[in-house]
Amino acid sequence: MSSNGIHNGEDPESITAPLLSGRRFALNNHTSQVALVGANVSPIESLDYEILENEFFKQDWRSRETVHVFQYIFMKWFTCFLVGIIVGMIGFCNNLAVENIAGVKFVITSNMMLEQRFWMAFVVFFSYNLALTVFASTITSLVAPAAAGSGIPEVKAYLNGVDAPGIFSIRTLIVKIVGSITAVSSSLLIGKAGPMVHTGACVASLLGQGGSKKHGLTWKWLRYFKNDRDRRDLVTCGSAAGIAASFRSPVGGLLFALEEMASWWRGALLWRAFFTTAVIAIVLRAWIDFCLSGKCGLFGTGGLIMFDVYSSNMSYHLTDVPPVLLLAFVGGILGSFYNYLLTKVLRIYNLIHEKGIFYKVLLACSISIFTSCLLFGLPWLASCRPCPPDASEACPTIGRSGNYKKFQCPPGHYNDLASLIFNTNDDAIRNLFSKDTDTEFQYSSVLIFLISCFFLSIFSYGVVVPAGLFVPVIVTGASYGRFVGMLVGSYTDLNHGLYAVLGAASLLGGTMRMTVSLCVIILELTNNLLLLPLIMIVLLVSKTTADAFNGNIYNLIMKAKGLPYLKGHAEPYLRQLTVSDVVTGPLQLFNGIEKVGNIVHVLRTTGHNGFPVIDESPPPEPPVLFGLVLRAHLIELLKKKSFVSTPVRTTTDAFRQFSSEDFAKRGSGNGDKIEDIELTEEEMEMYIDLHPFTNASPYTVVETMSLAKALILFRQVGLRHLLVIPKMSCRSPIVGILTRHDFMPEHIFRLHPTLVSSRWKRLRLRLPVREKSFRLS
Amino acid sequence: MSSNGIHNGEDPESITAPLLSGRRFALNNHTSQVALVGANVSPIESLDYEILENEFFKQDWRSRETVHVFQYIFMKWFTCFLVGIIVGMIGFCNNLAVENIAGVKFVITSNMMLEQRFWMAFVVFFSYNLALTVFASTITSLVAPAAAGSGIPEVKAYLNGVDAPGIFSIRTLIVKIVGSITAVSSSLLIGKAGPMVHTGACVASLLGQGGSKKHGLTWKWLRYFKNDRDRRDLVTCGSAAGIAASFRSPVGGLLFALEEMASWWRGALLWRAFFTTAVIAIVLRAWIDFCLSGKCGLFGTGGLIMFDVYSSNMSYHLTDVPPVLLLAFVGGILGSFYNYLLTKVLRIYNLIHEKGIFYKVLLACSISIFTSCLLFGLPWLASCRPCPPDASEACPTIGRSGNYKKFQCPPGHYNDLASLIFNTNDDAIRNLFSKDTDTEFQYSSVLIFLISCFFLSIFSYGVVVPAGLFVPVIVTGASYGRFVGMLVGSYTDLNHGLYAVLGAASLLGGTMRMTVSLCVIILELTNNLLLLPLIMIVLLVSKTTADAFNGNIYNLIMKAKGLPYLKGHAEPYLRQLTVSDVVTGPLQLFNGIEKVGNIVHVLRTTGHNGFPVIDESPPPEPPVLFGLVLRAHLIELLKKKSFVSTPVRTTTDAFRQFSSEDFAKRGSGNGDKIEDIELTEEEMEMYIDLHPFTNASPYTVVETMSLAKALILFRQVGLRHLLVIPKMSCRSPIVGILTRHDFMPEHIFRLHPTLVSSRWKRLRLRLPVREKSFRLS
Repeated sequence: MSSNGIHNGEDPESITAPLLSGRRFALNNHTSQVALVGANVSPIESLDYEILENEFFKQDWRSRETVHVFQYIFMKWFTCFLVGIIVGMIGFCNNLAVENIAGVKFVITSNMMLEQRFWMAFVVFFSYNLALTVFASTITSLVAPAAAGSGIPEVKAYLNGVDAPGIFSIRTLIVKIVGSITAVSSSLLIGKAGPMVHTGACVASLLGQGGSKKHGLTWKWLRYFKNDRDRRDLVTCGSAAGIAASFRSPVGGLLFALEEMASWWRGALLWRAFFTTAVIAIVLRAWIDFCLSGKCGLFGTGGLIMFDVYSSNMSYHLTDVPPVLLLAFVGGILGSFYNYLLTKVLRIYNLIHEKGIFYKVLLACSISIFTSCLLFGLPWLASCRPCPPDASEACPTIGRSGNYKKFQCPPGHYNDLASLIFNTNDDAIRNLFSKDTDTEFQYSSVLIFLISCFFLSIFSYGVVVPAGLFVPVIVTGASYGRFVGMLVGSYTDLNHGLYAVLGAASLLGGTMRMTVSLCVIILELTNNLLLLPLIMIVLLVSKTTADAFNGNIYNLIMKAKGLPYLKGHAEPYLRQLTVSDVVTGPLQLFNGIEKVGNIVHVLRTTGHNGFPVIDESPPPEPPVLFGLVLRAHLIELLKKKSFVSTPVRTTTDAFRQFSSEDFAKRGSGNGDKIEDIELTEEEMEMYIDLHPFTNASPYTVVETMSLAKALILFRQVGLRHLLVIPKMSCRSPIVGILTRHDFMPEHIFRLHPTLVSSRWKRLRLRLPVREKSFRLS
Repeated sequence: MSSNGIHNGEDPESITAPLLSGRRFALNNHTSQVALVGANVSPIESLDYEILENEFFKQDWRSRETVHVFQYIFMKWFTCFLVGIIVGMIGFCNNLAVENIAGVKFVITSNMMLEQRFWMAFVVFFSYNLALTVFASTITSLVAPAAAGSGIPEVKAYLNGVDAPGIFSIRTLIVKIVGSITAVSSSLLIGKAGPMVHTGACVASLLGQGGSKKHGLTWKWLRYFKNDRDRRDLVTCGSAAGIAASFRSPVGGLLFALEEMASWWRGALLWRAFFTTAVIAIVLRAWIDFCLSGKCGLFGTGGLIMFDVYSSNMSYHLTDVPPVLLLAFVGGILGSFYNYLLTKVLRIYNLIHEKGIFYKVLLACSISIFTSCLLFGLPWLASCRPCPPDASEACPTIGRSGNYKKFQCPPGHYNDLASLIFNTNDDAIRNLFSKDTDTEFQYSSVLIFLISCFFLSIFSYGVVVPAGLFVPVIVTGASYGRFVGMLVGSYTDLNHGLYAVLGAASLLGGTMRMTVSLCVIILELTNNLLLLPLIMIVLLVSKTTADAFNGNIYNLIMKAKGLPYLKGHAEPYLRQLTVSDVVTGPLQLFNGIEKVGNIVHVLRTTGHNGFPVIDESPPPEPPVLFGLVLRAHLIELLKKKSFVSTPVRTTTDAFRQFSSEDFAKRGSGNGDKIEDIELTEEEMEMYIDLHPFTNASPYTVVETMSLAKALILFRQVGLRHLLVIPKMSCRSPIVGILTRHDFMPEHIFRLHPTLVSSRWKRLRLRLPVREKSFRLS
């Protein structure tokens, strides 16, 4: 599924090749550390959250002053503050740009419609949209393919420990922002929340690695975070910031990051994310105060969705519960059907995208043309309705937004379908959520809108532009809820706007399968806490219903992209396997003092990122496992040519050659390659003492441990390599290394095909297996 | 600190003995598994969240049918449903009882005041309160001392893996409910939220272990959860339910459990806790609907605190921020001062409580008498004020509650201090939060109320009754905020009710140091989302300020009680120590096939709960570590007398003797004792094959690992025992066992006194060290 991001897709084999080729075994346990889809184009690396304990780091640690610790704490908070400010600004500018770009379009076309120049209006509408779409899809496919789609699956995978290349580059960031603005303004039915999450994560990641080295944009004082743990925390705050900025929902954003995005979470992180989203709330508040004075063009008081559906006398009773339950149940089914269709459509789109950039843009254009025709054409189907005499706002509305769009209607009449469809998504949602408008819409209009939204949003998401899913799902769900409300009619007292909110909740629950975060986001959007119990019921019912059919949409997309996401819980079949059932050998080991030539050879011929280091003893004694050395550290040693001519252990002397900067983990994709290192014949015959640079206390498990138990350790502690030691102590001191890949269901089922037909698999493994066949077909 | 709960306190030595006596080392690494305060009275055990993998459990696992898995999933949800229903009911009844019991008191006294019979009113008020206090403190100290205090520290420690005895017994539950109702009704300045959290956790724990075996109240179909993991999840849901029921704040309750209570958290648990609190929201909603029809006596539409401070035209600007920041800053200082005073007072009270039950009740009585005098006496200091002509409600109020209490005033006048002080806490908060009442209160009245609340709440908490801290802190904070609002006066447009809300937030942030959960609880209490950015700022500032002085109040109390809480992050000094620096020997080992007499001897003479099992090999080969066997399992083996006469490995034969029920982990305090097992001389000479019952894949760490890294494993995976293996493979296969106790700062500093004076300690370890001196003094 190259279209959606992480690898360029220029290499067709990376997509069509079966997931688990024999390569892994042909190359001596080669690719454990490398994700398999697109492996030869751009390897997906794992992140490493383990505390590395080698002598060098220990020395470095001991030499730190108290002031460093304060500096470190300050930098963490300050970076979060910067993330908040920057993401808040981007979020606001995003909204401002969309409201103005899309607003101008609607104002121009509305004016032409007023003058009865319908064809001219259509041509303007059509070409305006097409131009924006072409621009968005061209920059996305040419400059930063990783910016396509919502980016939420990639960020989620990153926070799980999967470092897909290019997702956090400065190019991706810029394309994501510009592309999202133009694509959303072009009336495609896509959202801006997903791209904002990616933007937030991207900003946080760039700040965390001190800018972009590639483009010379670095700030030395910001290059403070040297390991994946600190960057993970920052990216988590960044993704919280994204949702907070797009929905003006600070608590909801925080909970979104906690519930959906983060794989690891700590109390301190909760507090820092809270700080980040609080900064955003204040930045947005200040900007809105600024805009209230009318300096923001067509932005006005709108934008930054906030649907005030408060009605102080709202109450509901037991009799209202059955229709709400039904709404939630059907919403859950609709949601899982939505997920199913979306993955199918993505698969078809992928075939088109493989053919090249031209086809990608062509696909985007056809979707844009189709959308424009639909948006402009459908309202003609609706009959004009006379304005209600007691309407709370101007009717018909001439300007950009409003509940009563004039469209083609004579004076004093309005077109209800146009009020929904010939509008920005935010305004459509506002119209659907509005209270005291129970008689405004006709059955047929809402139904037409519902159906067109449902399919348009599915067809629009896969296009190569930055595109989110939140807003389309909310629009579809709101029209669904409104329709149910109209059907239920006088049976309950709840007004139709309320049904629209509940409908949106049910479809969100059915596709995204979140609970608390969706609940809080909806509450913050609608500003009505009295709805709480109803929204909770709706989310619970729709999520439960949908979970019976398939998974969370982000997990489905993540699987389709081949990102090796590690789940937090162990599936039952993992308890039937021991670690030795999946670990494969023979291993590539190094001696404590190893020949340079050997190291270079091994690094060149394997793709491993970690190597056990063994200390040989005189014959009767067995060899001892000293620890694990990382590829990145070996390359650094080779680069600095810290060699000795005879195989003896060096003293502290070696430390002077290096600073802790040298061993700091670089940002993604910035590591040195073994191929770049040139060594003479003579140097190849020398030795390196690996002891000071070897992690001397890696986590280990015994080979008889069940895979389930090893997974818990691997996942909870956030490992990249897990060493497997033998049960009997006098054989080789190490059996093998477990990596993320060894826990993937696809890998395990290939090694143990009988499991696929066992009852355990049938019970709980519906999802991974289906995904597997999906990709192999 | 026996008064506050976990051990009976009959043994004075357990309190006065220094925390770390020499006992541990005298008894050969005796007490690693046993908490040290009151160790000889009732040992605090650790919980164990590891997956035990012995052959017996594997067999049992393989024999399970698909239907069992469904049954298990269903039972988990069903138990959560039951927790929601029951806690919701208890929460409602609690409120109903308090409103009626306290309401009757205020109605009677008000009527007497109307008739000018002031002395009579005082006597009634005084004796009513005293009787209720005596009742509450007597049942608490006689029946269930573990029910005293809020219970939040104990539940938090339980969720961290510390099983303090008696905290979840059925006695504690009943005393907690009844005691909380009577104590709160007796006008003591204590809250009901803390006790509700304990109640919720208690209900969940009792349901999770299928009732109380001791009292014959068991339901076989509920005895489904056999390990600590499942019970931990349930107790987490129960504590979320407690807050949800007391504040009618489902999302806030959930976040409270997540942020403050839980040490481990998973996505699935979030969902289940959400379900539990949703059930509560619905139960409460149904009861309130019922009460609206007037069938709940004095409950009326009140109770279940919900302060509706919504004002649709509320807005604030940049100029409002400085006073709010100041309010938050001072609130943070006040909060940390509150924590400091509270721990001091608890220490003094503890000296009194040690003297026996009579003194406990006596202390409670004196606090009650003091409170009654204050509440009745202080309003006389305030001058009567004429009723405002445009008051939104009746003035003066004659009935139970209302903003304008008549007290001693002539008709047409009201006493503003009485409106605050001569009232239930909920009504006082409602009065303080109310909007459009900026001129109602005088400076002096609010100041008197603030000071009396601040000190009364500190003096009331330590009394031996179930007592929470939430409501007292909210009352104090609200009066503080209102006072600041009056001082700031015309400088800002914010009304004083809003300042009261912010003041409550700042004091809560300063004492409890939560962020998201407090934010959501306050939002749900006040039903006003527009406040969000201000509340976020206030919480951030007050928490940061207070953190500079001391810790979270619950952590302080937990430390004072000696509960060995394991923090989630590793302090810097832990990186300077290796595992071998703290682990102590010699170890007590068992052979794979061990003599019964040996086992009985070791079990009788040590307090260990886990023993490494070693397989000896013929001389040249070193012995092999087979695994770890638990005391509880050994006792079960001895009880069933599954012995063999010769030392040979048994076959599957042994499995038939046992069912998985036999090895299921019992509820706390229900385990069998070694002393209860009688064996003949002949049996003592026989052997047991430990292999099938030994956990063959315990987690291990190498002795050179830093303590920080080992702590991460220990804490993240939730272990009880962590085996330490040697670096060189050919010595003894095991060096020692790490338990929770070995990570406690007190233990480490005793072993390595130099660390105390090192700079690292000074930097980050202010808190534990101060706590240590506190206890040792």
